[in-house]
Amino acid sequence: MSTNTIQYYMPGNRLARATVYNNTIYLSGIIADADAIDFKSQMESVLKKIENTLADLGSNKNKLLQVTIYLPDINQFDYMNVIWDKWITPGYAPARATVEAKLAHPQYLIEIMATAAC
Amino acid sequence: MSTNTIQYYMPGNRLARATVYNNTIYLSGIIADADAIDFKSQMESVLKKIENTLADLGSNKNKLLQVTIYLPDINQFDYMNVIWDKWITPGYAPARATVEAKLAHPQYLIEIMATAAC
Amino acid sequence: MSTNTIQYYMPGNRLARATVYNNTIYLSGIIADADAIDFKSQMESVLKKIENTLADLGSNKNKLLQVTIYLPDINQFDYMNVIWDKWITPGYAPARATVEAKLAHPQYLIEIMATAAC
Repeated sequence: MSTNTIQYYMPGNRLARATVYNNTIYLSGIIADADAIDFKSQMESVLKKIENTLADLGSNKNKLLQVTIYLPDINQFDYMNVIWDKWITPGYAPARATVEAKLAHPQYLIEIMATAAC
Repeated sequence: MSTNTIQYYMPGNRLARATVYNNTIYLSGIIADADAIDFKSQMESVLKKIENTLADLGSNKNKLLQVTIYLPDINQFDYMNVIWDKWITPGYAPARATVEAKLAHPQYLIEIMATAAC
Repeated sequence: MSTNTIQYYMPGNRLARATVYNNTIYLSGIIADADAIDFKSQMESVLKKIENTLADLGSNKNKLLQVTIYLPDINQFDYMNVIWDKWITPGYAPARATVEAKLAHPQYLIEIMATAAC
């Protein structure tokens, strides 16, 4: 049994935005802020929230380890990649999978779950 | 290369109920026992199986790190949360994502995959 | 903050085939080589790519920790398991979840995302 403790970031009664354990950050599935309506705005909102979460935990997007991207419409795959590719620092792209899945509410057009080093 | 070894919990020829490595527990996607028919029974069965697995590995639900919930019918999202919220100890909610996905057999109404600290 | 560094395997500007951190390997969602057309060929191609990736990182299929299998057609579940079961070394099966999800391109019939020890 480890003596490590778990750190909770933005803890709630349902979920935490992220947990930290063993120098690893486990993020929740991140969706866009409510004011982001179209796909581009939502993708940028999600990426910004991931950045902010990682920054507050002493990490950054160059320390992402593994990312799962859920798209309710897989036809957005190519456009998602345009935004993603600009966001990624060359040489620091994480392992990644993208699949189609309906999300909790139909207004959400993308959800990203990630783990990162810290 | 690590000298850590992997511990297998309920090992099988197809999958293990869980693996343990580096003080981290990796669970399989947990489905309900066959006698749980309706959604509430299945959700409670899944949560109980997660609890039992974690207990046998020296952990508990307050050490969950990251959880992915698969619902074949995303319209169960709100009801799932009612049961989930009661189960979670305030302050110990893990990172979590919930998406819609058909499961291996149509009788299964929920599947939960998790990682936890130990 | 950890002094561990992240190792990138087959790094790209979009994703890496795998990242390594804390003695753990995080693989991308692996799809088949383009010349694998039918399900059996694709499954074998995916498993071979996982094996090769793990081998290059000083690991092997007996050190898989947690695996998520995405099938665009869940009706392939039983046949997928026939191939999977032959591939797994008895006693070394990882934690696993299998769900239905459409993949990035319709020609892909299976995608597998995994973590492993090294």
